[in-house]
Amino acid sequence: MPSRFERANAIRALAMDAVQKANSGHPGAPMGMADIAEVLWHDHMKHNPANPKWADRDRFVLSNGHGSMLLYALLHLTGYDLSIDDLKQFRQLHSKTAGHPEYGYAPGIETTTGPLGQGLANAVGMAIAEKTLAEHFNRPGYDIVGHNTYVFLGDGCLMEGISHEVSSLAGTLGLGKLIAFYDDNGISIDGEVEGWFTDDTAKRFEAYGWHVVPAVDGHKPEEIEAAIALAKQHDDRPTLIICKTIIGFGSPNKQGKEDCHGAALGEEEVALARKALNWPHAPFEIPADIKAEWDAHSYGDHQESSWQQRFDDYKAAYPELGAEFERRVIRGDLPEQFAAQADQLIQEVAAKGEKVATRKASLNVLNQYGPQLSELLGGSADLAPSNLTFWKGAKAISANEADGNYLHYGVREFGMAAIMNGIALHGGFIPYGATFLIFMEYARNAVRMAALMKQQAIYVFTHDSIGLGEDGPTHQPIEQLASLRGTPNMSVWRPADAVETAVAWKAAIERRDGPTSLIFSRQGLPHLERNAEQLANIARGAWIVRDCDGEPEAILIATGSEVSLALEAAEQLATQGKQIRVVSMPSADVFEQQDAEYRQQVLPAEVGTRVAIEASHKDWWYKYVGLEGAVIGMDSFGESAPADQLFETFGFIVDNVVNTTAELLESLDD
Amino acid sequence: MPSRFERANAIRALAMDAVQKANSGHPGAPMGMADIAEVLWHDHMKHNPANPKWADRDRFVLSNGHGSMLLYALLHLTGYDLSIDDLKQFRQLHSKTAGHPEYGYAPGIETTTGPLGQGLANAVGMAIAEKTLAEHFNRPGYDIVGHNTYVFLGDGCLMEGISHEVSSLAGTLGLGKLIAFYDDNGISIDGEVEGWFTDDTAKRFEAYGWHVVPAVDGHKPEEIEAAIALAKQHDDRPTLIICKTIIGFGSPNKQGKEDCHGAALGEEEVALARKALNWPHAPFEIPADIKAEWDAHSYGDHQESSWQQRFDDYKAAYPELGAEFERRVIRGDLPEQFAAQADQLIQEVAAKGEKVATRKASLNVLNQYGPQLSELLGGSADLAPSNLTFWKGAKAISANEADGNYLHYGVREFGMAAIMNGIALHGGFIPYGATFLIFMEYARNAVRMAALMKQQAIYVFTHDSIGLGEDGPTHQPIEQLASLRGTPNMSVWRPADAVETAVAWKAAIERRDGPTSLIFSRQGLPHLERNAEQLANIARGAWIVRDCDGEPEAILIATGSEVSLALEAAEQLATQGKQIRVVSMPSADVFEQQDAEYRQQVLPAEVGTRVAIEASHKDWWYKYVGLEGAVIGMDSFGESAPADQLFETFGFIVDNVVNTTAELLESLDD
Repeated sequence: MPSRFERANAIRALAMDAVQKANSGHPGAPMGMADIAEVLWHDHMKHNPANPKWADRDRFVLSNGHGSMLLYALLHLTGYDLSIDDLKQFRQLHSKTAGHPEYGYAPGIETTTGPLGQGLANAVGMAIAEKTLAEHFNRPGYDIVGHNTYVFLGDGCLMEGISHEVSSLAGTLGLGKLIAFYDDNGISIDGEVEGWFTDDTAKRFEAYGWHVVPAVDGHKPEEIEAAIALAKQHDDRPTLIICKTIIGFGSPNKQGKEDCHGAALGEEEVALARKALNWPHAPFEIPADIKAEWDAHSYGDHQESSWQQRFDDYKAAYPELGAEFERRVIRGDLPEQFAAQADQLIQEVAAKGEKVATRKASLNVLNQYGPQLSELLGGSADLAPSNLTFWKGAKAISANEADGNYLHYGVREFGMAAIMNGIALHGGFIPYGATFLIFMEYARNAVRMAALMKQQAIYVFTHDSIGLGEDGPTHQPIEQLASLRGTPNMSVWRPADAVETAVAWKAAIERRDGPTSLIFSRQGLPHLERNAEQLANIARGAWIVRDCDGEPEAILIATGSEVSLALEAAEQLATQGKQIRVVSMPSADVFEQQDAEYRQQVLPAEVGTRVAIEASHKDWWYKYVGLEGAVIGMDSFGESAPADQLFETFGFIVDNVVNTTAELLESLDD
Repeated sequence: MPSRFERANAIRALAMDAVQKANSGHPGAPMGMADIAEVLWHDHMKHNPANPKWADRDRFVLSNGHGSMLLYALLHLTGYDLSIDDLKQFRQLHSKTAGHPEYGYAPGIETTTGPLGQGLANAVGMAIAEKTLAEHFNRPGYDIVGHNTYVFLGDGCLMEGISHEVSSLAGTLGLGKLIAFYDDNGISIDGEVEGWFTDDTAKRFEAYGWHVVPAVDGHKPEEIEAAIALAKQHDDRPTLIICKTIIGFGSPNKQGKEDCHGAALGEEEVALARKALNWPHAPFEIPADIKAEWDAHSYGDHQESSWQQRFDDYKAAYPELGAEFERRVIRGDLPEQFAAQADQLIQEVAAKGEKVATRKASLNVLNQYGPQLSELLGGSADLAPSNLTFWKGAKAISANEADGNYLHYGVREFGMAAIMNGIALHGGFIPYGATFLIFMEYARNAVRMAALMKQQAIYVFTHDSIGLGEDGPTHQPIEQLASLRGTPNMSVWRPADAVETAVAWKAAIERRDGPTSLIFSRQGLPHLERNAEQLANIARGAWIVRDCDGEPEAILIATGSEVSLALEAAEQLATQGKQIRVVSMPSADVFEQQDAEYRQQVLPAEVGTRVAIEASHKDWWYKYVGLEGAVIGMDSFGESAPADQLFETFGFIVDNVVNTTAELLESLDD
């Protein structure tokens, strides 16, 4: 039988060969962590390569995602649909084996990693999902949900601030099934980390309430094995296993040095490493006995079958819970009646015609949608009373009471967003999380990662403009909307009233393949009257609020708090005999997906005289008003003052809209 | 003599009165930390209210910036130019007393705080600046630089990830003059923090190598006094003093509860607090004896005079060092010869005409500018070999050797940017810091804060597009340039070759009142030929690379790696008889500051047929091409593959530029 060392060397060889062939990539981490990976994946991972989506599989996250070849080697060796030819295509266009593990590219990749620290955060999210689902669904004798989340991480992950946010919360929540392996190799890109990273990491994680297994030799399988056994004994706390390793283990001249972190070893050094490791096989060649030893098909089939039997029995005993589990966790469907109920609510909100802050309208929507959606898992980064996200059916999740639907994330915006990604990736939930729009910036790269991974995460970003008032420029978003709108695959809604808020929430919940940012006001916004057609057209992203006879002379385009301003200005311009159309555009990205006919109907190409009005950065709006239009927006920071004074100071008043439009019309007459 | 308690109550009263008058703000933190502030500011702070810019003053940072009234009260009471009338204008338009402390609004505000955790990071930057300056300038018998940095922080700051990044680095660097006070009041906005924050903070900071004074009663002056004394005994490590406090201390019905965190107490409760505190004075009234006791003018004058005497003696003994200190630290001037030397280098680079990656061109520039600028303080977030920021005169700063000019920040992008702000605010340095452009997102809000505070920070953002190749979509910026360009007061340069790189660096160094983002390529870029006028015009942000006879039929606008592509396409279009102009626009913001004549000369309003070409998000460019132009840019994420294949895949090839332009010209002929 091949030895553990031989199995680990299969990983090492594939990693150095693939990086060498691409002449690009990171051999150091896979070669350094191969022994740990061997023990974990050969003896502990509960998974089925034939069904990478099996609901109760263990989750594995490579937070040091640059070591992607480690993961690809494991997936190939254990029998996932990832061939040697796929490995030979490492880092090539449209291959399954991208430079960093990309979710959806190859089966078995649980999350996209590369931006450091976020993999650990995703893993925390997955472990929260597991714990919450287990508490909700499991019944005596029926452990339907019971899997571990394993995460590999490096020095870089531990230096990043997000590791603090999520590890602290993981400790508070007592995530006993989260087991992290720290690749403590003492090397980062700049060299030996002791010059810039001298934490006592064991002590740090103990301070978070973790169980820590320190000083494990990451090249001694028996020590790794013992550490995992210890970790599994602690089900009330997450475990950090600190493994001393040698980066690039096996490369005689480069191991232990930063040279092997992020570049191919070179043909010569690869040959020397083959000798040093006693691995005489050709590049990309894995001897049959070693491959057979790695293959996890029959083990995986057995594991999943036995779970399936248990689940079938459970379903017979608890048909409602079984059906809910199938819908939410296995199929990931919304309740059948959701769309109809939401449409009814939208009608009711329209009939009510309330003047209300959209953040408050959002809470009202949550109170209505919430009871229908057991998969909603909310939260806020310590701004629940301001974001208004704690709806009447919300129940906080804690270490001892995990069957809730709300996370007090604490003041941890980045951690929140990356944890939401982990929850979404795990399945069984639609996470929503809230902060002020400006603090989206703290969470920024995790928000982007949701879009890249096509994950359904719903962001509730309140206090959407200078309209937040006295808290001042540090708290007033200016360029943030453009940043969200520019993020590929991000849907953004900035509703103008309670009705648009309800439509936006419906769209966010029904958007299963990407994130949605809901942008809400702090201050009250008046109700807009609509006929049935107008009401229906909100869902198309932009609609005509007010029209004129024949072709408009000018079109005013606005969103959110500025729509009613545009409307008032249009009325005044109408008294001057101007033909003015007002368009509310709560979601430009949704509007852009409409057919050309509808887009032309709302914004006719012939009408070039356009004024965009939004208390946000001007630049973005030129795509709708062009070189000849005007934008009433922001191009400076805000100020600290009551909101109404700020709107006046920065030109968001009827007179300015009227004058700007009139001047534009005159200049074209010239 | 007024008691300590009375002096502290002066703070409490001003805080609750100002918040009450504004009916907006945060009374909880000022009332809770008043006793700590009293001991620190009355007995320890070395400062001179008459000269808030005195170089050797202690720095004080309120990282929990929402408690701004604490700082305003202290500044008023100790005698800064901040009157009772100013306090009455708390949170009103254009007052000195904004909702959060805004740098530059009132004297004595050392940094803008509010976004949590960043104040602590700024303080770390200030302490690094102090330590490095001390090591560089001090001579036996002449401690010219020797001041403490004090920082107040709350639970929120400690939950934020950035607190980890910067505290870890502060420990590694042994910042013995950094003394932090943790307002451990157990309350955050969502309520009692034990539901989401259960760190053993003392243990955590010990893990960073800090000296920790735990369990101090934050309402007992003698305990606070003893803790500060202990802190001052440790000059090899930063100190964290953990003060147990009661939020809103003195408010009988609201203290200890989240209600008093972020809202006025109410007239009735303010009256009750007056009684409870035995503070019978009218709102905004401070009895003369208490005010006199607080006044720090004569103390401050004495302190600064004695320092000035020492400095005069030092200057006599070390005239060169003294002059350098005056230039760098006191006046903050560049060396007189800098501009001329830089111009000469630009000429040399132009003459050399090298094809080189702009990140490499940047290193060459640093090697030339570096020796002239002792104030340059560089660094990278563990990407020095990729960002190419460690120039030949760079010397790393460490705990024991602080007289360097380079910080290995570790994998801590956010911490780096916020520390840079602290270094810039301290004075004596021009900080530059580097990471990949995509990871600007990790640092995002600190980058914005530099712009808001008008601080000179220079960001070296390399790997600027899909051109980074194999690392794939997680590492390829798309919407990031638009985000930087949309940030008010941010200058952005994306140079097209080595010459533009040298011009961009010169502009960044000469821009003393705001940050500059330098965007560099990973891959080699060809040299562009220029005549003298063209060379001079680079500094105007946009210039005509190639022109045609008479009015152009179309203008191609490009930046960075896409300029040479535009040029090739223009040549090909010229062979088809088209009149094409090519504009390189390395800095749109600088171009927008030029006079109307120059802007019209480069981009004549009459020529509406424009094509923008940039391997970045399309949307931003419509402000230059309008509704009738075309943009060759990105609107999706990138992929993992060699760079040339990606450029082809996403349309950055000559044929596509030629065809797009030709089609645009034809469509207009229709």
